Amino acid sequence: MTAPVQSEQNFIGIDLSGPSIRANVIDASGKMLEALDAPKEQQRIVEQVAHITNTFQVRNQRISAIGIAIPGLVNRQIDRVVVSRDLPDTVREDLHSELSKATGLRVEIENDANAGAYGEYRLGAGQGSRNMFYMTIGQGIGGAIIIDGKLWTGASGFAGEVGHITIDTEGLECTCGNFGCLETVASGPNIVRRAKDRLYRDNTSSLSRLAMNRDFTADDMAREARNGDDFSLMMIERTAKYIGTGVATIINLLNVERVVLGGGVMDAGELILNPIIAEVKRRAFQPCFEATQIVAATLGSTAIPLGAALLARDAATD
Amino acid sequence: MTAPVQSEQNFIGIDLSGPSIRANVIDASGKMLEALDAPKEQQRIVEQVAHITNTFQVRNQRISAIGIAIPGLVNRQIDRVVVSRDLPDTVREDLHSELSKATGLRVEIENDANAGAYGEYRLGAGQGSRNMFYMTIGQGIGGAIIIDGKLWTGASGFAGEVGHITIDTEGLECTCGNFGCLETVASGPNIVRRAKDRLYRDNTSSLSRLAMNRDFTADDMAREARNGDDFSLMMIERTAKYIGTGVATIINLLNVERVVLGGGVMDAGELILNPIIAEVKRRAFQPCFEATQIVAATLGSTAIPLGAALLARDAATD
Repeated sequence: MTAPVQSEQNFIGIDLSGPSIRANVIDASGKMLEALDAPKEQQRIVEQVAHITNTFQVRNQRISAIGIAIPGLVNRQIDRVVVSRDLPDTVREDLHSELSKATGLRVEIENDANAGAYGEYRLGAGQGSRNMFYMTIGQGIGGAIIIDGKLWTGASGFAGEVGHITIDTEGLECTCGNFGCLETVASGPNIVRRAKDRLYRDNTSSLSRLAMNRDFTADDMAREARNGDDFSLMMIERTAKYIGTGVATIINLLNVERVVLGGGVMDAGELILNPIIAEVKRRAFQPCFEATQIVAATLGSTAIPLGAALLARDAATD
Repeated sequence: MTAPVQSEQNFIGIDLSGPSIRANVIDASGKMLEALDAPKEQQRIVEQVAHITNTFQVRNQRISAIGIAIPGLVNRQIDRVVVSRDLPDTVREDLHSELSKATGLRVEIENDANAGAYGEYRLGAGQGSRNMFYMTIGQGIGGAIIIDGKLWTGASGFAGEVGHITIDTEGLECTCGNFGCLETVASGPNIVRRAKDRLYRDNTSSLSRLAMNRDFTADDMAREARNGDDFSLMMIERTAKYIGTGVATIINLLNVERVVLGGGVMDAGELILNPIIAEVKRRAFQPCFEATQIVAATLGSTAIPLGAALLARDAATD
């Protein structure tokens, strides 16, 4: 349980994981007071965060802490970003102290999927559960674990990397160096890769309207599937089988009571959620399956900045 | 942390998971005072436990609780055995209340792998860690999770089923109904199955001294490997790759600081442990790998009855 926070305190949450910076301010109850997006400039991250903080502070005197969601491995015990392909080396290691200095506020840094999980857990699809797994399927696949009502990030902060569990020992090489990771087949770009392989390499482009656009995205596939394109629907259903395999592993291993699935790929809605659930049912232990609700995330892309702000709030009052 | 126990209290631990019943008595410090083995009679489990308890009580007046390790899914919140292929239906559901009645003592029931994990955590290879995964590789493959110094068994008690994570989406059907579970290739009987497939089905029995004995076991393979049989060594190293794949999944997902590997298959010692560690290094995130010690269990088959007794002790003093 979280101790009550003085009602006058407000908290900033900032998401550095996307192509733009998303930021918001919440009050102690978690209510969002304002939000802004800004184009991200990799080399000026610290200045940008300081500027956004300042912008909020001009209008709101009550801000007492900032939570910042980082794409990469974050060791929160020592406030270090350990791995991030997306942050420049110059600021990565000391990001936490640089941000604290630049803003003059208490700063919490956390992995982006962990922040998103915390947002969904506190204010989204995770509400009412105590043990939850969050999986976000978009450009990459991330995850996070809530145990007994708390974000559980492992011995050094890296827990939840569900995109890099092996589902096929002989599978493709992944960007992480492993082979056959879930991410190699089920992330947005890999769904598109698989579809393009079928359409162009196998010379079956008459199969789908998708072939009219050589630069289609996972979003395009979801739209075409909704419009009755059988090929797109088949590719989404196959993707659902891979994701369902990963979720079954989670359920057998963690026996959580809820799995929340978010990220851009889940925008396909029931077209992907239903076959995911069917595959989990096929693969998981029946009692584990029956003990788990598998649901779509409800906060969309606000989960991350909101979760980051909530983490700052709850760390301030721990 | 565990509250101190009055020093005069003693606790029984009983392991129902093997072909014989293994039982022991510990004092409050965890020291083993006595132990016994008895042939298991499936249909008389409750009477046998009562008899063993009575035998111990005749010599020891201080016994205050019993921990019982069960092969199957146990929901400890409601003290129910949910699934167990090894216990007769007649006693399964109400085992806890029948045992309480028959012994007149406080009874804790727990899954066998969870009990073994707790034994290794408190008195074996897990000592000194706070976040640990335990994996036992024998007739089947089980697992259990220690988080922040406590056995974490999930929302309904089933967590840790690492034998049934999918490592090959197109793999063989498992006894659990899933396909491509780790257990389908890396449990003792499946190691033997794979070896026999190679030796007899593929007609390559000249490859190995193993072929002189059509009823060889995983133990025989380990012995032959130690004696320089290349085929046995190769099969063990391939098995290590599968187990390492599972351990890499655990490490990426849970970022535990220690993984303890036990069970009969690990009796092959460094012949299997070293290639497991090499495969984990190849597959896991480097920071997760570096944060984890992967070690052999040290308690052997006493881990389970000892862990069961320790669970009874710690439940009595929670």
